[in-house]
Amino acid sequence: MSGAIDLARVLSTLQEPWLPRTVATLNDYDVRVVKTRGEFTPHSHPETDEFFLVLQGSLTIKLESGDVELGPDQMYVVPRGTQHQPVSADGAEVVLIEPSTTINTGDTPSELTADRVVQNPH
Amino acid sequence: MSGAIDLARVLSTLQEPWLPRTVATLNDYDVRVVKTRGEFTPHSHPETDEFFLVLQGSLTIKLESGDVELGPDQMYVVPRGTQHQPVSADGAEVVLIEPSTTINTGDTPSELTADRVVQNPH
Repeated sequence: MSGAIDLARVLSTLQEPWLPRTVATLNDYDVRVVKTRGEFTPHSHPETDEFFLVLQGSLTIKLESGDVELGPDQMYVVPRGTQHQPVSADGAEVVLIEPSTTINTGDTPSELTADRVVQNPH
Repeated sequence: MSGAIDLARVLSTLQEPWLPRTVATLNDYDVRVVKTRGEFTPHSHPETDEFFLVLQGSLTIKLESGDVELGPDQMYVVPRGTQHQPVSADGAEVVLIEPSTTINTGDTPSELTADRVVQNPH
C-alpha cells in the first residue's frame, strides 16, 4: 500500500453498504472506507474507541446520550464500550480508523458482520 | 471532546500554517488538523507511522522515493522512520492522525516545532 490513496475512487468501487474496505494501515490500526445506507447493528467495541469521518452524505450515530449527526468533513470518535448504532437514511461515504483487529459489529455479531478486506495496492 | 466535530470550522479558526490543533483523541492517538503553506522541516518519526488526509487544497509529501501528491479526499500514511518533507505551495487543510506523544517535527527540531494544543470542546 504505497502512493496517494484516493478515497473517492476506492469508495466508487464498493457495491454493498456496510462492508468496509481497508485502504491503509497506520501502525496496528486500519484506515477503512465504507458506504453506509439504512440501519446498522447496534453494538459496542469494549476494547477500543472508533473514529468516524464523513466524506459525503450524512450519517447519524445513535447513542444512548443522544444522536450525533455528521455531514461532509465532520467527525466523531465513539468512546470504547459505548453502545452506538450508525444510521444513514440517505447514504454516506465514511472513513473509519480503528485497530486492525476490530470487527465492524463489535460485541454484537449479525448478518452485517464483515471480514477484514484489504484493498489491493494500485 | 464530545459531539460532532466540524473540521472546516476548526480549521477556519487557525491563523498560522504548520501549527496543528488536536480536535479529538482515539485511544492514545490524536486527531489533528493543520493548515499547510510553504515548506515544512524535513524529518522522520522513528517510532510511528503518520496519517495524512487532505480536505482542501494540495499537499506534496516529498520522500526519497519520490513525491506523493495529495488533493481533496486523498490520503497517505508515511511509514515510521521515513524521511519526509510536507510542502504546500498553494496551501492545504489537512487531517493528521498519530500517537498523542508525536512531535510535529519528529527527529528534527526546528523553529516549526509546535506544542500539542487541544481544541476546546464546542
